[in-house]
Amino acid sequence: MMLSQKTKINILKSPTKEDWIEQAINNLDTILLDHSHCERKAASVALNLMFRYSSNAMLVRKLTAITKEELEHFEQVNQWLYKKNIPLGPLSSPPYGAKLKSTIRTKEPQRLLDSLLIAALIEGRSHERLGLLGTHCPDQELAKFYRSLMASEARHYGIYWVLADTYFEREIVQKRLEELSIIESEILATLHPEPRIHS
Amino acid sequence: MMLSQKTKINILKSPTKEDWIEQAINNLDTILLDHSHCERKAASVALNLMFRYSSNAMLVRKLTAITKEELEHFEQVNQWLYKKNIPLGPLSSPPYGAKLKSTIRTKEPQRLLDSLLIAALIEGRSHERLGLLGTHCPDQELAKFYRSLMASEARHYGIYWVLADTYFEREIVQKRLEELSIIESEILATLHPEPRIHS
Repeated sequence: MMLSQKTKINILKSPTKEDWIEQAINNLDTILLDHSHCERKAASVALNLMFRYSSNAMLVRKLTAITKEELEHFEQVNQWLYKKNIPLGPLSSPPYGAKLKSTIRTKEPQRLLDSLLIAALIEGRSHERLGLLGTHCPDQELAKFYRSLMASEARHYGIYWVLADTYFEREIVQKRLEELSIIESEILATLHPEPRIHS
Repeated sequence: MMLSQKTKINILKSPTKEDWIEQAINNLDTILLDHSHCERKAASVALNLMFRYSSNAMLVRKLTAITKEELEHFEQVNQWLYKKNIPLGPLSSPPYGAKLKSTIRTKEPQRLLDSLLIAALIEGRSHERLGLLGTHCPDQELAKFYRSLMASEARHYGIYWVLADTYFEREIVQKRLEELSIIESEILATLHPEPRIHS
């Protein structure tokens, strides 16, 4: 209940439950490695959208900035991995990303709308979960690092939302966001057994 | 003949011929738009390699830096497009990239070696061609911009080469680089009819 009140991103239908926090705190090294992959993936998502919608100058400009920032975070997380002697390496993805991606409609302009809203939802959830790590992580320096990233995640969420609002009617955006946010929370309703940022 | 002497990147088997310069100078707007795509693609290539070889800490660190720099250039080229009222938009790719990519062997570790050397060759060729634009472009401010990017392209070439040299025996690197550089020059021997950085 308390967690629910702390959730600042209204976009999320259900707040993260205690079991995720417990899993994450018990597996901080894996969470850190997964976080590195998340930042790289976030950079890829933004770069691919810039490619697909290369005529949309505003989208290109804003997503270039996001890509650069995700890469900065990727570097910062990798420095933490290095500091903690956690070797870089592959890590299986939780079903979260693929399940969300499967909801993206294939026809334009719906594909663009869904892509932007899914990206917004992922940033919103990341903001919430990094915030939880920032509160519950026993390593105070690492907790501070998580808190330092929260503002960017919220800003990225906002940018994706503004882009959707720029290219589509607000009513259409709200309706689809409502549908997708329900799906997003449903995916996370059952904790994935492997500790991940989006388990 | 004169061009040959100007070529600083020894990796390239054959220097760019006069017909490319003429084509490029007569189509500066298209070249600028294609250049924007090249910078974005270069960022994608580096990001994808970081993903595929995520256990190689040195590779990840160096390619993160390259990706960030390519994005900086992408933004700078896009500012030029904006200044010259050239709308952003898609542009068909010349066969250069796909033909080079088709030479990458599918088995590891050959796939890594080939990927690094192909990336090195593309950076080397970009360095040479931006240098030619920097010399021949009639717009002095734009010419200066092209010259300002040359150093990075040469540095990127060097980084890809050093990575190949780190993970493979020098003799193997030299032999494969020799083979690939011949192919690279052969691809460019016939001018592609559409003006591109790598036409």
